Amino acid sequence: MDPSTSGFAQKLAEASQSHLLQFWNELSPEEQADLTHDLQGMDFQEINGFFKSAMETSSSSKQEKMDARMEPVPREVLGSVTRDRESLKDWELAGLHCVSQSKVAVLLLAGGQGTRLGVSYPKGMYDVGLPSHKTLFQIQAERIVKLQQLAEQKHKIKCCIPWYIMTSGRTMESTKEYFSKHNYFGLDKDNIIFFQQGMLPAMDYQGKIILENKGKLSMAPDGNGGLYRALGNQGIMDDMERRGVEYIHVYCVDNVLVKVADPAFVGFCVQKGADCGAKVVEKTNPTEAVGVVCKVDGRYQVVEYSEITLATAEKRSADGRLMFNSGNVANHFFSFSFLRDIVQKYEPKLQHHVAQKKIPYVNPQGQLIKPDKPNGIKMEKFVFDIFQFAKTFVVFEVLREDEFSPLKNADSQDGKDTPTTARHTLMSLHHRWVLNAGGHFIDENGRRVPAIPSLKDGTDLPIKCEISPLVSYGGEGLEELVKGREFHPTLMIDENGVHELVKNGV
Amino acid sequence: MDPSTSGFAQKLAEASQSHLLQFWNELSPEEQADLTHDLQGMDFQEINGFFKSAMETSSSSKQEKMDARMEPVPREVLGSVTRDRESLKDWELAGLHCVSQSKVAVLLLAGGQGTRLGVSYPKGMYDVGLPSHKTLFQIQAERIVKLQQLAEQKHKIKCCIPWYIMTSGRTMESTKEYFSKHNYFGLDKDNIIFFQQGMLPAMDYQGKIILENKGKLSMAPDGNGGLYRALGNQGIMDDMERRGVEYIHVYCVDNVLVKVADPAFVGFCVQKGADCGAKVVEKTNPTEAVGVVCKVDGRYQVVEYSEITLATAEKRSADGRLMFNSGNVANHFFSFSFLRDIVQKYEPKLQHHVAQKKIPYVNPQGQLIKPDKPNGIKMEKFVFDIFQFAKTFVVFEVLREDEFSPLKNADSQDGKDTPTTARHTLMSLHHRWVLNAGGHFIDENGRRVPAIPSLKDGTDLPIKCEISPLVSYGGEGLEELVKGREFHPTLMIDENGVHELVKNGV
Repeated sequence: MDPSTSGFAQKLAEASQSHLLQFWNELSPEEQADLTHDLQGMDFQEINGFFKSAMETSSSSKQEKMDARMEPVPREVLGSVTRDRESLKDWELAGLHCVSQSKVAVLLLAGGQGTRLGVSYPKGMYDVGLPSHKTLFQIQAERIVKLQQLAEQKHKIKCCIPWYIMTSGRTMESTKEYFSKHNYFGLDKDNIIFFQQGMLPAMDYQGKIILENKGKLSMAPDGNGGLYRALGNQGIMDDMERRGVEYIHVYCVDNVLVKVADPAFVGFCVQKGADCGAKVVEKTNPTEAVGVVCKVDGRYQVVEYSEITLATAEKRSADGRLMFNSGNVANHFFSFSFLRDIVQKYEPKLQHHVAQKKIPYVNPQGQLIKPDKPNGIKMEKFVFDIFQFAKTFVVFEVLREDEFSPLKNADSQDGKDTPTTARHTLMSLHHRWVLNAGGHFIDENGRRVPAIPSLKDGTDLPIKCEISPLVSYGGEGLEELVKGREFHPTLMIDENGVHELVKNGV
Repeated sequence: MDPSTSGFAQKLAEASQSHLLQFWNELSPEEQADLTHDLQGMDFQEINGFFKSAMETSSSSKQEKMDARMEPVPREVLGSVTRDRESLKDWELAGLHCVSQSKVAVLLLAGGQGTRLGVSYPKGMYDVGLPSHKTLFQIQAERIVKLQQLAEQKHKIKCCIPWYIMTSGRTMESTKEYFSKHNYFGLDKDNIIFFQQGMLPAMDYQGKIILENKGKLSMAPDGNGGLYRALGNQGIMDDMERRGVEYIHVYCVDNVLVKVADPAFVGFCVQKGADCGAKVVEKTNPTEAVGVVCKVDGRYQVVEYSEITLATAEKRSADGRLMFNSGNVANHFFSFSFLRDIVQKYEPKLQHHVAQKKIPYVNPQGQLIKPDKPNGIKMEKFVFDIFQFAKTFVVFEVLREDEFSPLKNADSQDGKDTPTTARHTLMSLHHRWVLNAGGHFIDENGRRVPAIPSLKDGTDLPIKCEISPLVSYGGEGLEELVKGREFHPTLMIDENGVHELVKNGV
C-alpha cells in the first residue's frame, strides 16, 4: 500500500502528524504493514483533542489556588480500624454476607509492566522471595479462594467472587498464559475475566506523536483510569450485570498485603450507603510522597503530593495529626450503578493528566536519541479521577503495616517499596498473626524470641514466617494450629500443615 | 613481680577469678606488667556482686507481669509540639531565658565506638557526607555556638552553655585531640569538659571474667548509665555547681538532628517544675524497635521493646493512637538537684542490665575462639534507669522528622539509621526551612520543584540543601536570606553567605 494514494496520508496531514510517514520508504514491507495497522487503529483527531485539553489543564498553575480550596475528610464519612473498633466486626459480617450472595466482584489493575522493578514481564508474576516463592498473582488468587470458602462456611451457600483483571496490550498474553499454566490457582477459570486497557501515543511538547523507531509509534497504557473506557468498550459492565454484581473492589496489583474483596471495607461502604469509597492509610510525615484524599470545592478527590505546598502538607488538626492525612493506596469500592454511570456518562468528560517523561525517539535524521531530560509527555487518566462524581463518598482508614506494602522498585540501597520490603512486611504480619493466636518463636538456643525483633546490625531481619492464604485470609483460624506451641523459624503454614523449614532450606 | 607471692593471687582466688593468671608464665615482662596494672585497678568483689544481682534480675522472666503493670503517660504530664502549639512559643522563650542566665548545661553521651558503623574512631567524628562534610561533633558544637548567640542577642547579656562530654577509655584521647585540632569549633575550650565513663569486664555465664587474649581482660564501657557514677567520681557535679548550672540537657552523640539544649524542651520542663523529663517521638508502628516511656507501678521508666508482648505493643487508645507511643530517643532533661541526688544516693542501688553477646575469648588451651552464638554477657546501666526516682516527671513529644535521626549502622541494603538516612533527614529538614522561609527550588529546566520530592526509581533523593547551624539553630532567621528567591540545588547557606554549588562540586 502506498500511503500517499490511500487517503491515509491526508488523514495524517489533517491531524498534523505527517511526520509519522517520514521514513516510509526506508521500511521493509513487513514494517510498512505493521505501521499501517497501527495507524489505522488510531483516531488522530481524538488524540489531538486529548493533547490539547491535557496541556491546557496542566499549564495553568493551580497549586496556590488548590491549597485554599482543600478541606480534610470529615470524621462522619470516615471509618477507621483503630478508632471504630466496636463497629469492625459488624462491618466484616456485613461484607462477608455480601460475598456469600456473590454480589462482590474484584477488579485488579494490572496493566503496568515491572519497568521500575527491572523486569520485562507483568508485575503480578513477580516472586518477592517468600519461602513459598509465591507470586503476587498467586497470593491474591488464594486470598479470593479463601474468602469464598469463609463466606460459604458462614452462610452455607455456594458463592463466587468474579475477578476482573485489567491488563494492557503489553501484558495481556503473558498474564493469560501464566494463569492458564497454573490452573488459575484453584479458581474457576470462568470467573476470571481478562480485559485490556487502551494505549495512547507519547507526544512531544508540540503535540507531534513520537516515533520510537522509524516504523513504530511510542505507545503507553492510558493510565489506571483507562479502566473506565475499557470496562465499557470490552463488555465488562454487561458481564457484571449478568452475574448480579453489586459491589466492586478495585485494587492495584503491586500491593503484597492487599485484602482482596476485604469484607470489612465492603461492609463499611455498604452500611454507609456509599456509591464510592477509598481505603486509606494515615500519612504521618508531611513530606511523604503519597496522594491524599480530601475535598476540593466540596467534592472528593485525590490531591497528588506534587500539587501541595509544604504549608498545607504540614497543617495539623487540634489532635496533632496531619490535617490531610488520608493517604491514598489505590484501593477503592464502587457500587455497580455508580460504576455504570461513570462508564456511560462521566468518564468521557475527564481530561488526561500530563506526565513529562524522557522518551527515546528517532530524530529527523533517523538517529535514535535517548534524551537525558524530559522531552515529551504521556497522557494518563487516574482511577481516582471519578471520585468527584460520587453522591455518597466514604473513606476507610486501615493500618499500613497490616494492609499496604507496594512493590515498585528493584532492591537497591535504601530503596523503598522493594521486593525486600514487600517480603518483610508480609512475614512481619504473619509473625504477628502467630503471636496473636498464641504461638511463640524460639531461637537456636531454645529461648523465646521477643515479639519485636531487634534491629541490630541494621539488617532488620524479621522472623521468617509465612502463612498460606489458603489457611488464613486475615489471621483467623490459626489458634488450633499454633496456640501454646513453639516454633523455630522458618515457619510455614499451608494447606499441608505446619512446617519448620531447615536453615537454608526453601 | 610474681603474683603468687604478692597477695594478688589470693585476691583473685577469693573472687574465683584465678583463671586470669592461667597464662602468666607465657607472658612477656611487659605483658605481665600491663595485666598487673589492669588487675590492680579492679574491685573483684564489687564486680562479682554486679554479676550476681544482674543475672538474678535478668533470669526472672518479668515479661507477663510487666504488661499488666504498664500504664501510658497521662496527658497532663505530656507537652507536644503538635498538640500544644499555642504554648510552644512560651516554652521557647522560657528556655532561652534560662540559657541566657547560663543556667543550662549540655551533657553529651559519646562513650560508644562506631563498631556497628564500621569505624574504629569515636562516632562523633563521623562525616555523614553532607555538602559541608561536617562531623556530628561539629554540627552539635555549632548549634551550641548559635544558641548562645541567640540568647545573648535576645537578653543583651553574655552567657555560656557548658558542654560536658562523656567519653570512654577507648575514645577519650582521640576525642580530645579532635576538638583541640579544630579549635573547639568556636567554643571556649574552658567550657568543654571531657570526662570518662567506667569500664567493666565481660563475663561468661558462670561469672568468670573473659580473657580476650592471654594477657588481657575483655573490657567494655559500663553503658550510658555509667554516666552517673562518672559524674560523681570525676568531679563533674562539683564543676556544675561552681558554674551555677541548674538544668542539664542530656543527649546521645548519634542523633544528627539533635536540638542541643533545646530551649522549647528546657522551657517546658522548667515551667512544669520537672526534675526529670524525657523527649520522645510518637511510635506509630507497634513493632518498631524503640523503647517506650510509660509508668510501671506508678513510676516512670523506659520499657524496652524486647520486654513487651505484642498484645501490649498493639494496644490503642480511643483516639486510635498506640497506647504506648512515647518512643524514647535518649534525650533527657534533669534539674541539677535531681542529678546530684541520683549521683549521691540513688545510682549505686541500681542493678546492671545483662546484654548477651558473642565475645571472643581464649580457651583453656590458649586458643582464640570467635563464638558464633552468645557465650557471655556485658553489664550495662542505662541513662534512663533513674527516671523512677523523679518526683515530677514530664514528657515532651516532638516530631521525628524534625528532631530524631540516629546514626547507628553502616550503609547497606535496606539499612535503617545509616549515614545516608542521617544525611537525607538533615537535608530534608533544611529544605523545609527554606520553603517555610519563602524560598523556592528550581530544577535544571528552571521549573519549580514540588515541595514533596518524588520517590521515582526508589532513589528517594532529597533536594540537596544544607544550612550551617551558625546561620540558623532551628529554622529562624532565614527569611532575609531566601524569601522570594529561587535556588538550584545544591544550596549551601553558611556564615559566608548563600551559595549554589555546581554539580558534583563540594
